[in-house]
This record gives sequence, C-alpha cells and structure tokens, in this order.
Amino acid sequence: MTPTIDFWFDFSSPYSYIANEWVDAVAARHGRTVRRHAILLGATFQAAELKSPVSYPIKREYSLADFARSARFEGVPYLQPDTFPIPTQNAARIFWWLHDTGSPDAAADWARAAFRAYFTRSVLLSDPDALKALAADSGLDAAAAEAAWNDPAWKLRLKSENETAIAAGIFGAPFFMVDGEPFWGNDRRAQIERWLATGPF
Amino acid sequence: MTPTIDFWFDFSSPYSYIANEWVDAVAARHGRTVRRHAILLGATFQAAELKSPVSYPIKREYSLADFARSARFEGVPYLQPDTFPIPTQNAARIFWWLHDTGSPDAAADWARAAFRAYFTRSVLLSDPDALKALAADSGLDAAAAEAAWNDPAWKLRLKSENETAIAAGIFGAPFFMVDGEPFWGNDRRAQIERWLATGPF
Repeated sequence: MTPTIDFWFDFSSPYSYIANEWVDAVAARHGRTVRRHAILLGATFQAAELKSPVSYPIKREYSLADFARSARFEGVPYLQPDTFPIPTQNAARIFWWLHDTGSPDAAADWARAAFRAYFTRSVLLSDPDALKALAADSGLDAAAAEAAWNDPAWKLRLKSENETAIAAGIFGAPFFMVDGEPFWGNDRRAQIERWLATGPF
Repeated sequence: MTPTIDFWFDFSSPYSYIANEWVDAVAARHGRTVRRHAILLGATFQAAELKSPVSYPIKREYSLADFARSARFEGVPYLQPDTFPIPTQNAARIFWWLHDTGSPDAAADWARAAFRAYFTRSVLLSDPDALKALAADSGLDAAAAEAAWNDPAWKLRLKSENETAIAAGIFGAPFFMVDGEPFWGNDRRAQIERWLATGPF
C-alpha cells in the first residue's frame, strides 16, 4: 500500500489553499499519496483556545500581506477575498459526501475547485446560491450537493472528522501527519520535503 | 552605506535563537549587515493581545517538538531548557549597554553567547548569579554588567526599544525588516533569501 501524507484543511484558510496546491506534487515526488481531511478551524481553535491570526488587530495587516506573499512565493495565484474568513461547513460537507459516496479523488477535485473559487475569484462558499453554482460548474449535481450539506448524516460526518482531528492533536490548518510526525503550517513545506527525502531528522 | 537587515529578538525565544545562528551568513551572502534589536516578547505580546504558543496546552507539546526539529533542520544545536520561558530583561539590558557603550558587534557577540548558553546548556539568563558568570565567561566585566542591568538608564533604553518596535508593528520574534518589508518567524528564512536575491516578489 502506498504510504500517505495526511492533510487537514479548512476552506477558509489561505495557507491551507496554498498547501493544497503543492501537496500532491510533493507527495508524488516521494511515492506518496495525499489523504485529505476537510475540517473546521473554528472547532479546532475552540478546542485549543486559539483564535485566527486576523482576529488580532496588530497581526491582521501583516497576516493579510503574508497570505499573498506566501502564495507568490509558491507560484500560486491569490486574490484576498473581501469577505474573510467565512463559514465553510457546507463546502466541507460536500467534500465528505463526495469522499464517501464517490471517491477520495472526487473529493480532492472539489477541494481544489472550491479553494480556487474562493481565493482567486472571491466566490463566497458560505453563500448557498454561490455554492450551488460552483457545484454545478464543477460537474456536480447542485441539488444533490445542497441536499447533502443539509443532511444530518453529512453534518455528523464533518463533526466526527473535527472531533477525530482534535483528539489527534490537530490544532490548526494546514496540518500534516507524515509517518506519525506532525507538521503545522504551509511554511513547514521544506521540513516535510526533507523528511520525505531522508526520513526522520 | 551597506544596506541592513533589521532583526528583533527575545533571548527566551527558541526561533529567535535559531535565526540568530543563520542571519549573519544569509546577510553576508547578499552584501548586507545585520542590525540587532533585543526586545521583550512579553511587551509585544501584551500590546498585540497575543500569548506565547507554549501557553496553550494543546499547542505546547507540538511547539516544543517543533523548536528542536526546526533547530535540527537548520543544523543548530538545541537543548530545550526545563525552565522555559524565562524573563530576559537583564540579558537584553546588557545587550543595549554593550551596543551603546561598546559597539553593535560587541552586542552581537553577547547575543550569540547568551542564546547559546540558554538553548544548549540551560544557563538561566534570568538568574543573576548565572548571568554574571556568563558575562565573565564572555570576557565582560561582570560587576559592570550587573550594574548596567540595574541602571535606570539601561532599563529605559530597553523600554524605549520595546516601544519603538511595537510602534513599528513588531508583534513577535524573530522579526525581520528588509527594505521596509516585514518578515515574522524563523520559518520566513526562505522568503527573506528570495527577497535578498531577486528583490520584491
């Protein structure tokens, strides 16, 4: 079985979006596949008594500039959405619905589409109409997607993923687990690459 | 005049210690000199309403592991002090005393010595006797160093540096300013190096 890189993300997290753009290529270069986990940062922040960096006035301005610079550094297109952050539970429920009823690849395609829509075209994933339109543009059955995000079963699936993540010590996003080693943040890319290339260091 | 990299640090910050070990070589490679600023993270945290990452229980275990791994990644020796974090105002006042009455280079030598003492030999910079012994080992007049850290003039000098840093938007350490561009964190090294190599990106 191909060894994996586990990757936790929130659709409203700029650093998660950037990592989502490089993680597959990095994994493939080292014979790994990526196992994605859509979660809600609100849940992990609450459990860890943390807050978003942009909720601190002095840190906010730097953080907004750093999102864009970090994207440029990785060669990833980025446009800061005016409405930010946003609730992402519906987009995350679509992810798990596709993951469980379709395939992890279908869910990964949705993750890419939703991240790019929000962080390059300011498509508000929190707006039901915009989300349905994006689902349709992405080749999904928009009505079925809406039914999924309103379905208690997929609400529970996401809740359970949040709880599993918190129990595993995930306190932010993007978060990676490689051979049981935790890496937090888009800026741990170089350390992850060294780990994949040389093993534990 | 040689262009500079401004570098703010706190003697109790592991990531500041790691950065202190690479910043001169990176600067020299690009024809720059480093201008060091000893500050107190307690002051910047308070101004920005932030807290140390190790003050959050869930984040603490990861952070301690990440300090050591980030040091290994940079090839820097590291031993987590049991007593951590510690108050560092006396070590910082010695820095400014040397800076103003000796030279920035003398202060930089002290910064290196104090960081290495705390982060490789658990020498408690917060303990007056240990600090005097370290000053003597570093070729300083230990009694003069003690007099300096108790002198209202050097207390004021440090306080004023903290206030200047906060006014400039410094909210953590290590913090760098390169051509007016702010970079926060040891993990921004790669972005700083690209900036120095190619200019704004």
